[in-house]
Amino acid sequence: MNLQQSYQTGKLLIGDIELESGDILTNVEVAYEKSGSVSGETVLVCHALTGDQYAIGTAAAPGWWNGLLQPGGFIDTNRYAVITCNVLGGCDGTTSALSVDPSSNSRYAAAFPAITIRDMVIVQRLALQKLGISHLKAVIGGSLGGMQVLEWGVMYPEFMDVLIPLAATPYVSDYAIAYNHLAKTAIISDPDWKEGNYPADRPPAAGLGIARMAGMLTYRSDHQYNERFQRAASRRKDAAYEVESYLDYQGEKLVNRFDANCYLSLLEAMNSHDIGRGRGGWQAAAKRMEAIVLTFGFSRDLLYPPEEIERFAALIPGARHVNVETIYGHDGFLLEFDKWGHHIRDVLQQPMKIL
Amino acid sequence: MNLQQSYQTGKLLIGDIELESGDILTNVEVAYEKSGSVSGETVLVCHALTGDQYAIGTAAAPGWWNGLLQPGGFIDTNRYAVITCNVLGGCDGTTSALSVDPSSNSRYAAAFPAITIRDMVIVQRLALQKLGISHLKAVIGGSLGGMQVLEWGVMYPEFMDVLIPLAATPYVSDYAIAYNHLAKTAIISDPDWKEGNYPADRPPAAGLGIARMAGMLTYRSDHQYNERFQRAASRRKDAAYEVESYLDYQGEKLVNRFDANCYLSLLEAMNSHDIGRGRGGWQAAAKRMEAIVLTFGFSRDLLYPPEEIERFAALIPGARHVNVETIYGHDGFLLEFDKWGHHIRDVLQQPMKIL
Repeated sequence: MNLQQSYQTGKLLIGDIELESGDILTNVEVAYEKSGSVSGETVLVCHALTGDQYAIGTAAAPGWWNGLLQPGGFIDTNRYAVITCNVLGGCDGTTSALSVDPSSNSRYAAAFPAITIRDMVIVQRLALQKLGISHLKAVIGGSLGGMQVLEWGVMYPEFMDVLIPLAATPYVSDYAIAYNHLAKTAIISDPDWKEGNYPADRPPAAGLGIARMAGMLTYRSDHQYNERFQRAASRRKDAAYEVESYLDYQGEKLVNRFDANCYLSLLEAMNSHDIGRGRGGWQAAAKRMEAIVLTFGFSRDLLYPPEEIERFAALIPGARHVNVETIYGHDGFLLEFDKWGHHIRDVLQQPMKIL
Repeated sequence: MNLQQSYQTGKLLIGDIELESGDILTNVEVAYEKSGSVSGETVLVCHALTGDQYAIGTAAAPGWWNGLLQPGGFIDTNRYAVITCNVLGGCDGTTSALSVDPSSNSRYAAAFPAITIRDMVIVQRLALQKLGISHLKAVIGGSLGGMQVLEWGVMYPEFMDVLIPLAATPYVSDYAIAYNHLAKTAIISDPDWKEGNYPADRPPAAGLGIARMAGMLTYRSDHQYNERFQRAASRRKDAAYEVESYLDYQGEKLVNRFDANCYLSLLEAMNSHDIGRGRGGWQAAAKRMEAIVLTFGFSRDLLYPPEEIERFAALIPGARHVNVETIYGHDGFLLEFDKWGHHIRDVLQQPMKIL
């Protein structure tokens, strides 16, 4: 094992790509983080809706999956190189609604073309090519990240040894599309949205805040909300209950770090998620996977129910499913690593199909 | 049994009342429907958030609980008189944000005082007094209606033989307050809300529509959404998925029949629901009930989980709980009467405590 480590962030120029829709997206750039072992095999991390490429981060600013990705950790950065790309359409450097449209010389804004999970994966594949990586130890991610993991497995079945989707189903349900629709409606109903042409210093803050609230209702379980807040009165004047202040705060926080057009574009990509589209259904698509598959479901996940993930895993030859008992629901994949991280360490150390 | 029936709607003048907050509400009026037997005992029906007093309705316009309230039905209108009052704060004739404030001679709008479930019950109690009714066979209602039923049982334990709360818990959870907060935020963020002073022909339609969507996400279960829509594409141009068109339509429909200030006022009343407030907790309050209690829970009810209703019922001496297995979730109390209505017929015919 080579313990030499590096930490690197940057942008890769991919060039033009044809999207699933047939549209051409020109001069695509991908912002990424690369860390961990300089000589080991590579693990690709895919981030969730409001995540970013800083999965590991630095000592000063630890990344969002730092609890999983550490020297000696469940994904051992002494052993593996870890790469995370900001997703196509995301707002941290990869080409998105925030990018300049070369045909108009102004930002795409709402004119950014519709993208799908498959487009995200193609872009990551090209980014890895630029880095000289032609095989991955594993692809891993939760939620929107998990959807990318599943598409990776179907689109490039021989590219990785192990696929680890967490809190993700083979297709997004109508019930999930319904929450996304509320979020989308809140953003585009905000007069500050201006058909997407809002100035940077005056985004549709109210609409994006409400959209975030709709997300928050599905990220944590009812049990966790009720246990945490206990009907406590708010200490703030403008809210009666503590849970209301919490939601307001979460909304405000997102407005300060996320772009509304990007959010809309990623919601649509999420809605499009169905590994079975054009492939004879998701059951048929699942059979295309050749890697070792380890799926995770988190109890009381409202939109990505563990039972459905388990049912899906049962269709994939050699797949293993882990059901994590947690009060948190969907956000379980960002928490309590000691509870479930060892399954990941194990599958990376001894990738074996259960036959 | 006297088969003579009547159908009557009207308004009762209650006069001034002191609200739980200490505020005085003057010249309170209650709009009601009275139907069924002219000489039998009376059943009081309490309606839900966007319901109204027309529980039975007419042949031309059947009421919302017509499936339960019929001659020979589960609640037999040949045998019982049935009264439903539009709730205090509702927008169908009872005093609310739509009423004229005698002190200003203009509508209360957002200045309508904060009301609670207890205030609603006091007003119903006074309305019954006006009608000369001093005892009820039963009080029944679902959701916000069920909250009123529970308060009826605690506030006037000897006033009725039977209490039948459906899809209601002894207090509203933080998770439910969270959904209400999203709804409230959507309404008050809509510039057309104008701090509550919108003209009748230009209500905060976008905000109220989004608020309705938040409700709809909790009225039907994930299973029902997914089974009904199957990721079908919308036939409408402005939506990609059928479930999106459905939510838009539900939003528009509510905007045409419900007032935004009334909606806000009822959400706050709902948030305040806790039979234990000022009574040493809900467990202690539950013990004050003296009537026969028959509770209903509906499977996959997101905000009023059947397990919690069952746990509550177990604390009330002699109470019986019915768990209705349904794909619908919370809306179960408005549907599939043949599945569970007989329990109501039985408890009305033979009200016996299980001792």
